[in-house]
Amino acid sequence: MLNPNLTTDRPTFVTHLECSLTGERYEADRLHGLSSAGRPLLVRYDLPAIKASLPKAMLEARPTDLWRWRELLPVRRTSDIVSLGEIETPLIPLTRSGGPNVLVKDEGRLPTGSFKARGLVMAVAMAKALGVTKIAMPTNGNAGAALAAYATRCGIETIVFCPDDTPEINVREIAVQGARVYRVNGLIDDCGAIVGRGAAQGLWFDFSTLKEPYRIEGKKTMGLELAAQFGWQLPQAIFYPTGGGTGLIGMWKAFDELEQLGWIGPERPRMYAVQASGCAPIVRAFDEGVEHAERWEDAATVAAGIRVPKAVGDFLILRAVRESGGKAMAVGDPAILQAVDDAAKKDGLLLCPEGGATLAAYREALRLGWIDEDESAVLFNCATGLKYPMPPANAKVDRHTEIDLAAL
Amino acid sequence: MLNPNLTTDRPTFVTHLECSLTGERYEADRLHGLSSAGRPLLVRYDLPAIKASLPKAMLEARPTDLWRWRELLPVRRTSDIVSLGEIETPLIPLTRSGGPNVLVKDEGRLPTGSFKARGLVMAVAMAKALGVTKIAMPTNGNAGAALAAYATRCGIETIVFCPDDTPEINVREIAVQGARVYRVNGLIDDCGAIVGRGAAQGLWFDFSTLKEPYRIEGKKTMGLELAAQFGWQLPQAIFYPTGGGTGLIGMWKAFDELEQLGWIGPERPRMYAVQASGCAPIVRAFDEGVEHAERWEDAATVAAGIRVPKAVGDFLILRAVRESGGKAMAVGDPAILQAVDDAAKKDGLLLCPEGGATLAAYREALRLGWIDEDESAVLFNCATGLKYPMPPANAKVDRHTEIDLAAL
Repeated sequence: MLNPNLTTDRPTFVTHLECSLTGERYEADRLHGLSSAGRPLLVRYDLPAIKASLPKAMLEARPTDLWRWRELLPVRRTSDIVSLGEIETPLIPLTRSGGPNVLVKDEGRLPTGSFKARGLVMAVAMAKALGVTKIAMPTNGNAGAALAAYATRCGIETIVFCPDDTPEINVREIAVQGARVYRVNGLIDDCGAIVGRGAAQGLWFDFSTLKEPYRIEGKKTMGLELAAQFGWQLPQAIFYPTGGGTGLIGMWKAFDELEQLGWIGPERPRMYAVQASGCAPIVRAFDEGVEHAERWEDAATVAAGIRVPKAVGDFLILRAVRESGGKAMAVGDPAILQAVDDAAKKDGLLLCPEGGATLAAYREALRLGWIDEDESAVLFNCATGLKYPMPPANAKVDRHTEIDLAAL
Repeated sequence: MLNPNLTTDRPTFVTHLECSLTGERYEADRLHGLSSAGRPLLVRYDLPAIKASLPKAMLEARPTDLWRWRELLPVRRTSDIVSLGEIETPLIPLTRSGGPNVLVKDEGRLPTGSFKARGLVMAVAMAKALGVTKIAMPTNGNAGAALAAYATRCGIETIVFCPDDTPEINVREIAVQGARVYRVNGLIDDCGAIVGRGAAQGLWFDFSTLKEPYRIEGKKTMGLELAAQFGWQLPQAIFYPTGGGTGLIGMWKAFDELEQLGWIGPERPRMYAVQASGCAPIVRAFDEGVEHAERWEDAATVAAGIRVPKAVGDFLILRAVRESGGKAMAVGDPAILQAVDDAAKKDGLLLCPEGGATLAAYREALRLGWIDEDESAVLFNCATGLKYPMPPANAKVDRHTEIDLAAL
């Protein structure tokens, strides 16, 4: 009756974790933060065993939600799944404001209205499996909301720190879903420093982006879904709004795993890491040809979700973008807002500012000849546009007076 | 590559329309409003022909979105489909705040964040097919947003009238998605009167609830989906927030059509039509044992979506509720707000007030012994909770000072 993905026992294939920088191995089924080199840990699977036991047709016969990918996910016991309905997100053509081959992957349809749900549903399930009882996290808003929802659902205590200009709707959403939330006079890395201090004191487990190994496993389902939705091909270009970059790194990992399963070939999309001109550390590092990105000072952009001055996975983002033949691109706030307005007014699709940034970047890439209109492109709308301010509309009519309706 | 439901040519089975009160027949493929008796028109299909040509397994093999049900839908040409990604909405257990057999059907995941998308995607496709170029509609908010998005997407001009206390987020959403929107000093039926006047003057086509025949066909997919999701059984009870009641009427029609196809048996859920104590015309008519509901004066409730003083389909709602062995129930605003808070705080699921009303009604039904905890119950959360006001949360910490983190 209910989705069998959530109830079926599952064979699991996690073999170990390894440092993304040094390759050092770490034991699975233990609580881990960063590697001893201070870098993100990646989960590794016995892919030949998965290949032998999971025919593609078996995968295709399952309901399409996130949990259909269970062999490629770290959660070993179905009883640890904490689900709020992680559907496969739809691809929506953006014909008028984008182009004939532009599709938006609308991540705003996920629980709590953003793609953060993918990462957090996985990280919370693993925290539950590994006995974590208290979590803290820095957030620009949406990650905190997703954490609050999932942690509340399984009784894990949560504290969230966000910049003091985080939109009221995000802050309230976090609180109403049962987390404690604090505004901090600073940016997300200032919030992260507080979380880090508390973690060092043993007060809580640190759920910062890429500082625990499982959010990336959840985010990689974006890549798995794309492959399935494109019939085991991939689009020619992906425009991804890049703050911490977990999703971009995750998709790149997903494509590699799918190729090892023999489900896709060696072709890859060009990955475009999209940042805002007011906070573009990855773009600067990309342009300078270096492997690590310096902190971006005085970061400011309307797209708060990608206002991340310093990303712990910087080298992984840059590596994926370069290997893919893509680019890191910065777009200005006016172009972002114009793109949001155009997509709504011309295609009836309300993007979030970060999603608008990908449309602005697509247009810029088109203008610069980096992409052709006949190439397939996927833009990630990472959250529902309903969470963000919209311009006012205050026309009124009086029902008691004779209105000239034809003149409206 | 893309969803074949949106591209495959489809045989269509619409035979005619008929008056829901008198049974009078109307020709399909013509533009219709209400019947000559002033009542809603229902679309009729050649169900034996569908039964002969669509094995259930064929349906089950399709992607699960709304368009998988094409034989049971009125749109004849794929080119008339105007899609924003109408996914099958997930069923989410509400164990702590509801009970062990309570599932929320989370309609907030649909385009524009509400179940209104189901009705409007169908009505707009049919308007496009039938050559309509200008539409007007009264709305409490969400229907207008869905209309704006779909009409904009296919270039149909739209004017929307809403009560002047409609939440700012709804009004802005409608405008940003390309419709003209006017606030009216009155309730939704006052707005409806203005739309009716303009329609009589030939200025636009009237898209009021049940005044065109196709929104109900879109809404009936809620019933079709439930049947598929429950493995061709149905839940024992459905709690449905009831304003105009299109969805309840639509589900009742869906169950009948599914039985005629032989896909479900004669069993039906008990249908609970949930209204707010401050606007409960259907409840009053149900309690009085009459077939039509008088207008509710001075309607007021925090759940604006069900603040509908007079429903043109009143007799259809009452008939379905009575035939099902269900009830019409009213719940007060404090119980609604408490239910919203409980679902968020205990289960991590943010309901809209109308969704909260269904949880409040479920609890009341449990208390009164109308339902047992071991019966399966589905509550309809008709919109994302993100569109509604949430209580403030204003805790702050200063990153420059030594914070006692253990005391947070």
